[in-house]
This record gives sequence, C-alpha cells and structure tokens, in this order.
Amino acid sequence: MSKFFTNRYSTLTPYTPGEQPRDKKYIKLNTNEAPFPPSPKAIAAAAEAAERLQLYPDPTYRALHTAVADYHGLAPDEVLLTNGSDEILNFAFMAFCDEQCPAVFPNITYGFYSVFATLNHIPYTEIPLKEDFSVDVAALKRASGTLFIANPNAPTGLALTLGEIEELLQSNPDRVVVVDEAYVDFGGQTAVPLVHKYGNLLVTRTFSKSRSMAGARLGYGVGCKELIGDLNTIKYSTNPYNVNSMSAAAGLGVMADEAYTQQNCKTIIKNRESAKTELKKLGFEMTDSLGNFLFIRHPRVGGKAVYSALRERGILVRHFDKAPIADYNRITVGTAEEMAALVAALAEIVKE
Amino acid sequence: MSKFFTNRYSTLTPYTPGEQPRDKKYIKLNTNEAPFPPSPKAIAAAAEAAERLQLYPDPTYRALHTAVADYHGLAPDEVLLTNGSDEILNFAFMAFCDEQCPAVFPNITYGFYSVFATLNHIPYTEIPLKEDFSVDVAALKRASGTLFIANPNAPTGLALTLGEIEELLQSNPDRVVVVDEAYVDFGGQTAVPLVHKYGNLLVTRTFSKSRSMAGARLGYGVGCKELIGDLNTIKYSTNPYNVNSMSAAAGLGVMADEAYTQQNCKTIIKNRESAKTELKKLGFEMTDSLGNFLFIRHPRVGGKAVYSALRERGILVRHFDKAPIADYNRITVGTAEEMAALVAALAEIVKE
Repeated sequence: MSKFFTNRYSTLTPYTPGEQPRDKKYIKLNTNEAPFPPSPKAIAAAAEAAERLQLYPDPTYRALHTAVADYHGLAPDEVLLTNGSDEILNFAFMAFCDEQCPAVFPNITYGFYSVFATLNHIPYTEIPLKEDFSVDVAALKRASGTLFIANPNAPTGLALTLGEIEELLQSNPDRVVVVDEAYVDFGGQTAVPLVHKYGNLLVTRTFSKSRSMAGARLGYGVGCKELIGDLNTIKYSTNPYNVNSMSAAAGLGVMADEAYTQQNCKTIIKNRESAKTELKKLGFEMTDSLGNFLFIRHPRVGGKAVYSALRERGILVRHFDKAPIADYNRITVGTAEEMAALVAALAEIVKE
Repeated sequence: MSKFFTNRYSTLTPYTPGEQPRDKKYIKLNTNEAPFPPSPKAIAAAAEAAERLQLYPDPTYRALHTAVADYHGLAPDEVLLTNGSDEILNFAFMAFCDEQCPAVFPNITYGFYSVFATLNHIPYTEIPLKEDFSVDVAALKRASGTLFIANPNAPTGLALTLGEIEELLQSNPDRVVVVDEAYVDFGGQTAVPLVHKYGNLLVTRTFSKSRSMAGARLGYGVGCKELIGDLNTIKYSTNPYNVNSMSAAAGLGVMADEAYTQQNCKTIIKNRESAKTELKKLGFEMTDSLGNFLFIRHPRVGGKAVYSALRERGILVRHFDKAPIADYNRITVGTAEEMAALVAALAEIVKE
C-alpha cells in the first residue's frame, strides 16, 4: 500500500476470482464457464465489429438494448447493459443503498455482495441460510434494507420459486429487491415477468453462462424505467462507454441465435442431472442445484481433500474454505466427457 | 428518478459524451476518434479471441501487462489495464482523493474530472487557465491536493513540457500527480520515464486515439508498484475481469504492430499542421494543439454558429457552450480528404 492510499479503501478485502493456474492443462470446472464456444453468430458479429474499433460505441447501445428488451417483452428504457453483471450489481449497491438503507443478503451467497457493500461504505446484514442451505425467506421479509438475492443461489444452486420472490417484493414496497439471475437459464424461474407489476424489482442477468460469453463481459439489469434511469445516472457518471463494441455486437449475434442457447442449456441440465445420479451412487451428498454447477460433499472425505485430490488429477473445482460449506465443493457442469472424467476421478478419491 | 435513489447521487450531473446522430451520414470530427481502422494484427487477434469467449479473461491480463510494461521499460506490476482510461481515472480519484485530500485540476480540462470528483464526494479546486489558455503551473504548484493534468490538455491541445511536469511532481512529494496522456502520441512529451524517479506519479494512457481502438475500451495507468497496488485493490473490489478478452487480445495485436501506430500518428500530425496553415489563411485563430484535434475560433463568426453551419454541411465537430471557450470549436483531425472537406466548408462559412 502506498502512503497516498485513502483511508476510505485501505481496509478493503477484494474479491478473489477462481484460480487460473498455468502449470498444466486442467479440466476447468471451477469458474462456472460454459463448456461450449459462443454462437457462431456471436463470433462473426464480434469479428466484424473489430474492424471498426476506431469508433466509440454508441453509448446508448440502442440495437442491443432493443434486442434484449424485445426478448423479455420490455421497453428499451427498462434495460441497462453493463460491463459484466458485476457492474450492474455494483451500480445497484451504489444507487439503492446508503448509510440509512443497508444491504441485506443471505450468508452464504455470491461473495461479491459483501465486497460491493464494503467498497461503497454500505452497512449490510447477512441472513443465515437454513439448515438445508435454502434461503430463509421469512427472515429476509422481516429484514430492513435493500435485498440482494441470487436466484438460483451460489454456490448452492438452490432456487426460490416465483411465488417466494413475489412475497419478498410485497413484504416491503419501499425497498428495492435485486434478483441476480446469473444462473436462471438452467432451470430456475425468472422474475422478469414481474417487472411491470413491481416498481421495486431489479433483475440482473449475464451473457457469461448460458450464452458462453464470460470473456465478453456483458451483463444487464431490467426494471421499471425509473430504477433504470437511476442506474443510468451512475453509468454516465462512471463510464458512459462501459461496454465495448465487440461485446455489444456479439450480444446481438447470440440474441439472434436463441436455439443455440436453448440447446446448450438443455445439454448442461442433462449432464448435471446425470452427474448427480452417478455421484450419489458414489455416496456423495448434494443440493438439488438448478445452476450450471453441482454443490457436493462426501460423508467420509473432507471438502479440501476432495479439492486437492481432484487438482492432482488435473481437474479444477472451487472450494470455499469457510463454515458452513467447507465440506463442499462447487463443480461446474461441463461436457459429457468432462463429467465422465470427474466421476471417474471422484470414484478413485472416495474409494477406501 | 425513482423514490429509491440514494441522496448520495441524486444530484449528479453525468458527463455528456459527444453526439452520435443517425439522421444522416456525417464526417465525424467530434469525438477525437482515429480516422484509420485498427491494426490488422489487432483485428485478427480480437477475432481469434472471440472464438474462446466462453472462458473468463485471465484477471491478471499477464500477457498484455507484460507487453505494455516492456514497451515503456517498466515491470508488469507498474501497469494496470482498465476498461478505457475513464476507468483508471475514476480509480485514481477513488484511491488518491477524499474529504481531506481534494482533487485539483485546471478549468478548462477534460470534463469528466469534475464528474468523477462529484461521484466520489471529493471536494475539488479548479485552477483557471492563463489568458493564452495555457495551464497555470505556478498556481497548480501552490494548490493543495491531488493534481489531475491532461497533457496535452483537452480541448485546447496545449502541452506542458516534461520540465514543467517535473516541477509539479517536486512541488509536493506528499501528493499524487496524475498525468492523463490520452493525446500524448501526437507530439507531446511523455512523463512515463519519470515513473522510476517519482513515487507520486501516475500516468494514464488509452488505446482509443493513437491505436484506433476507441470501441475496445482499453486504457491503463503506469506508476510505482505501490500506487498500482492501491489501484488494484479498487479494481479487485469493483470488477476483477474489467477488460474483456477480445480487447485484451486486440491490445496485444496492436502492441506488436508499432510501425502501424507510428505511421498513423505521423499522418495525423501532418494533417493537423496542414489544416492549421489553411485555416489561418481563412482568418481562424487557434491554439498550437499537440493533440489529434484543432481548437479554433474565428474573429467574426461565433463558435456556436460555426458548429451549426458545419453540421448543416454534414460535418460534426464539438462545441462546448461555456466561458471562456464558447467562441471555439474542437475539431478532430481526420484524413486528408476529411480535412479538405472541413477547410472547404469553413471557407464557405466565413465568407462575407
């Protein structure tokens, strides 16, 4: 740290992204990436946009805002595109929380929420998960502040129903409920149809997972136009050209290839459910994940030991070394071949 | 504005990007874009990266950090890549200013500095330009707080010498001096060689102008590793994957094609100087701009009138409707053909 660093941020503990080791070739099941390349239409559109990089993007991203709005049955001013969904989440913490309005989210959930709160000097309340790792809806309803709900939740993969989301929205119309749907395309129920019913709903999405575009850094939020207007005030005061031209073009390309996205989601769901069956045969316990990942533990072998043994065998998964999930590993659902390799490795690892 | 928007930001006046009208085809000289496409190596590298978009970028961007560091004769940990140079500037406001340490910058300069200060609740002092629009070095030396100096300055194009930058660095070793070199490749003197001499120097750069990559949103800062470490703390608490894979690849591509960049810079400098000569013949007055833009006024025709008359003729330039520069227009230096069209249009406009 330099002597110039402001006290405002000098105690920050940044988010730790999943490891990206380069010592050998791994089967990479640690960062919830898609195992399929992006749509050929996305690749072609990005390559074409690269030829015109000398020009700034249109800061209104009109074409892509319209495509995303059409996809959801919304108006373009009910959508805001961002540099990954981390950016729309940070904007939501900035816009809808402050000293008087704390952030509220489950403990355990996406680890970045507490980082965003700390970054923005926002007090926050963590609501413990229930014994079965499900989100405690009743406690969230009672809590005071802006709610941040990953649905499905990470790293458990457990989802709330649309009815439960609606309960949260109704519990206090004077607070915003942010529903982070990064993983919704793998079996969850989306809250987007509630946008026109509840002025306090912001739904965030990403192109990273179901649309195979993690490298493009493209996310968005949808909500009533007043909420989106507030977030635009933050955007235009931070980085008006927040999304690069190639990612915007790739986004338009993949939106025009919905069959490709749907097929990939079906394959991932199929591979996830097959892996659940196989791993249960090996004695693993797991949540009923609706994400593109599994969340598993073994009654005899600890979480850290499973992580290390897989790493030795060239398979990377994500281990969070904290209670109450230290026994678990989060494992991204890959191709059928990758899942077969995972199951074979785990069979070896848990063998007496 | 929604009823949920925090008071923290409800009075923000966001930055206004240059207009991007779509009513007809313009000669676009209003946003300081390069008139040349990006390097073929950048285009090819971006297109190749698009095929692997399903993977997150390496958040350390090791290859590009190394290439940029090598280019400047620095170490990789003395460089931080960002989503455009707006992001590194915002990070610098966040890291090196606060209630006790105000920001100090000239009035007139890049309009985003005051927006970043306001966004981050940082008090700021504006030091008026001298009569000839040059930056008042003596007044900046006396001022208390973190300095932000665009060099060359925008929209005047006037540059400080390396000696003057060094005077600012020495005037108070207990404050950071941020030198924004967005336009330095068109004739200014870079302060990068001073990085190893002054621990209070941060230089920011962009790939947008001289490297024809405005659409890629790629910028960076260089400074001693402690300053860069502080900025990394902000980055990893905001958006660890802040630069997308395609832009990072394109950046590597253009760094491997320095001859292309140098040739384009030479052409722009040549076109700028030719245009200065032609416009002086028409009676225009101007600064001795070292940027990729001209800053001109006419003794008889007002700045707004020149702007509007050019727009009618299909040429977009940037007019800032505020004292003391309301008589002026900032005009990006384009191709020889574009500059000929500009000169012809201005000749018509100032004709009795």
